[in-house]
Amino acid sequence: MPQYTLTYFDIEALGEPIRMLLSYGKIPFTDNRIDFEKDWAKFKAAMPMGQLPILEIDGKVMYQSMAISRYLAKQVGLSGANDLENYEIDNAADNINDFRAKIASAAYESHEEAKQHKYEILKKETIPFFLNKLDKIAEENNGHFALKKLTWADLYFTGLINYLNFIAQEDLLANHSNLRKVVENTHAAPGIKEWVAKRPKSNR
Amino acid sequence: MPQYTLTYFDIEALGEPIRMLLSYGKIPFTDNRIDFEKDWAKFKAAMPMGQLPILEIDGKVMYQSMAISRYLAKQVGLSGANDLENYEIDNAADNINDFRAKIASAAYESHEEAKQHKYEILKKETIPFFLNKLDKIAEENNGHFALKKLTWADLYFTGLINYLNFIAQEDLLANHSNLRKVVENTHAAPGIKEWVAKRPKSNR
Repeated sequence: MPQYTLTYFDIEALGEPIRMLLSYGKIPFTDNRIDFEKDWAKFKAAMPMGQLPILEIDGKVMYQSMAISRYLAKQVGLSGANDLENYEIDNAADNINDFRAKIASAAYESHEEAKQHKYEILKKETIPFFLNKLDKIAEENNGHFALKKLTWADLYFTGLINYLNFIAQEDLLANHSNLRKVVENTHAAPGIKEWVAKRPKSNR
Repeated sequence: MPQYTLTYFDIEALGEPIRMLLSYGKIPFTDNRIDFEKDWAKFKAAMPMGQLPILEIDGKVMYQSMAISRYLAKQVGLSGANDLENYEIDNAADNINDFRAKIASAAYESHEEAKQHKYEILKKETIPFFLNKLDKIAEENNGHFALKKLTWADLYFTGLINYLNFIAQEDLLANHSNLRKVVENTHAAPGIKEWVAKRPKSNR
């Protein structure tokens, strides 16, 4: 069996959908966690685009977490049965990624005044807009994001949610029961259930 | 044959990779262009995520330009032959999209001081970093972004390039001959050549 090594920081965030996909597929992997403070500076320049996560499969280095997730989903049976089904999953994942990017643009803003302004817009407009849209999609898909069943879009959202809560500075699921169902359904899936029970604790 | 209608603004930007994919596939489409100033406000609320482009295929509304592009690429023969090849294309497209997002975060910054700072970082660090990385990838792939042949990642970059130049406020291809080759190779492809000759002129 090929050797899988995921290298990421000691948090969930963009590494967690990949850890969940591997766990769902019962694929053993080395969960290599880089100490951001101590070790990241010396790793960064060697990374393909100066970023993590990377996934090594028998030494082949893969990067870009969504591209990796889509690839792994094919291997473990969490993608669609045809091109149109795969479009539906990709569409959902892109919506989630747009939401992530909007929150991140406030969280990582370095100019203090601009940052405050971004969080105001986020709280007043962007977060309610996305949560209502995403919750409705989850409702229409019976507690999933696409195809009324578990797909990698659900794992992508569920893997990211603690991190999204952290950078949004609020509990994004508090008033959206269909999004909570996506997370519950994903956490209940075989392989993921065991992973979530044993994974290192993280607040993001 | 199904009816295709692409609805976007009267510019290239995120609509253009889709127009190029349809053109490459010799798929006739209605090129519906919304006047941003006059008509966008009344359309916006009716769009699935308040955004364009959307592609309608016999009335079915598709959105998220990357998900649409990946789907169309499958139909017109610009995707990979297997999961790993598709990962390579997705990886390249995500790199390009990251580059787009970095430039956009400066271009659409509303706080004047923060915007100036973002453009400084962009010009000094981010743009050179991405251009060097992307140019090297294009060199390794003989004037393409993946698999040493034309894929939808090439169309994604080529469709976006005028818009990227516009928001970056510089000619991104000036000193990167391998990236110029990607654009030349894409413009020379059957269907795209004819489209580029007849498309409405746009500076972005």
